Amino acid sequence: MNPANLTDTSKLCVHTITTKPWNIEEAAKNFSAAGVKGITVWRDTLAGRNIRQTGQMLRDYDLSIVSLCRGGFFPSIDSNKWAAAIDDNRKAIGEAHELGTSMIVLVCGADPSQPLEESRKQIRDGIQAVLPEAAAAGVKLAIEPLHPMYADTRSAINTLAQANDMAENINSPFVGVAVDVYHLWWDPSLEKEIKRCGANGNLSAFHICDWKVPTTDFLNDRGLMGEGCIPVKEIRSWVEATGFTGFNEVEIFSTSYWKEDQHEFLGKIVKAYKECS
Amino acid sequence: MNPANLTDTSKLCVHTITTKPWNIEEAAKNFSAAGVKGITVWRDTLAGRNIRQTGQMLRDYDLSIVSLCRGGFFPSIDSNKWAAAIDDNRKAIGEAHELGTSMIVLVCGADPSQPLEESRKQIRDGIQAVLPEAAAAGVKLAIEPLHPMYADTRSAINTLAQANDMAENINSPFVGVAVDVYHLWWDPSLEKEIKRCGANGNLSAFHICDWKVPTTDFLNDRGLMGEGCIPVKEIRSWVEATGFTGFNEVEIFSTSYWKEDQHEFLGKIVKAYKECS
Repeated sequence: MNPANLTDTSKLCVHTITTKPWNIEEAAKNFSAAGVKGITVWRDTLAGRNIRQTGQMLRDYDLSIVSLCRGGFFPSIDSNKWAAAIDDNRKAIGEAHELGTSMIVLVCGADPSQPLEESRKQIRDGIQAVLPEAAAAGVKLAIEPLHPMYADTRSAINTLAQANDMAENINSPFVGVAVDVYHLWWDPSLEKEIKRCGANGNLSAFHICDWKVPTTDFLNDRGLMGEGCIPVKEIRSWVEATGFTGFNEVEIFSTSYWKEDQHEFLGKIVKAYKECS
Repeated sequence: MNPANLTDTSKLCVHTITTKPWNIEEAAKNFSAAGVKGITVWRDTLAGRNIRQTGQMLRDYDLSIVSLCRGGFFPSIDSNKWAAAIDDNRKAIGEAHELGTSMIVLVCGADPSQPLEESRKQIRDGIQAVLPEAAAAGVKLAIEPLHPMYADTRSAINTLAQANDMAENINSPFVGVAVDVYHLWWDPSLEKEIKRCGANGNLSAFHICDWKVPTTDFLNDRGLMGEGCIPVKEIRSWVEATGFTGFNEVEIFSTSYWKEDQHEFLGKIVKAYKECS
């Protein structure tokens, strides 16, 4: 198969963490100048700001606020921490509403001191607990399966099949799934599971980057599209074949790219987006 | 569930790589003195030795030679390398025969410059290509699924379901699967897939260690059983429930443990084996 190149940046979204050295005002100005049309806002960038005004600032730059990143981290063997996680997710829903975005990405969490099954149950219960607030705010919670190398502390949901199962089981218009090529590229069921969530309306977000060979850090060594071994174009073609018309969100954590001039890095992102995504 | 503790070392096998600083003669002597009853031999330890005599030396120490580690690494976009891999696997089968073991563990390989599906096809074709020699030598090839974090260069087979599919498809008494808790612990289908290979006679090897929290290196930061978040006892109970009576093989790659006195480390292995495996 030969998936088409992207010809413009009308569906290009960049996560604020991708250009971590910039604050949100710098990111907005520079993204907009580069033709980026969507932004996913990481919560740390909102610290000390009026969130409504920040949302307006982003819209004034003609940026769609694709999602707020991130809620989740529900599981804990400690019930006080579990309750605190629920509170924090309610807070995130309020922030998303003020910001003016209709989606929160959930990094679901895991607690290595309890069985994965218990963590999975707590994730499901946590989503159910905050679902009324999400619905009232018009905010969709997108369950993002994370790579199995994060099953110890970051997510007990590690395949798209698991995320699809959970979203279908909860069965709410305010719960969906987020597909990130970095976490899922290796999975022989990926095409099938993308079709599945596409068909039932649960495919809510699509994140892109690349898996560098070799990868030298568990968290912060992601690559630009085309720089690694993930068939990003092919996976995008599967996503688009479902009728998905949302943004392609560039989410790169990279100690080495964060050290570069971020204007140059953003130029590389736009180039890689058009040629390799 | 409350899986039983292990009461003795009659099913304890240690991989030579686990105590990498020892040569095979030291490993054999020290394993035997510690009550270890099985050894899995990594091929590098045979360099410069008469393999038949080395096998006899191991048996003289009352060690069962559980397997030779490792064959595989079939995939390559370069057909010359593919042919070289076939030759090397034939050589490994010859070594296993001389050593006197009836199993080779396959780390199947992957080539990041081609699609995973192509690598998977080359793995299957590679196994088929060497199967006549394996059968003639009475050596079983155990397909070991590796953690998805190794899908770039080490294995395009990343779940037990995939390994089971491939073994069932090839359908030979000389092809089985190896279950390693390090690679598979996160998989929600693990219990089901262990039952599956147990039921059809394909469950050929069981490897144990632990996933440290945090894990700081992609290869060489494995933990002793009990030191991390893998439910080793529970997974062993699933393996034993199938009727598996083979060895529990301790396979730990650890830069930090390799720096320790290996006698002390072996003592820790035996203790962890009885208490946490």
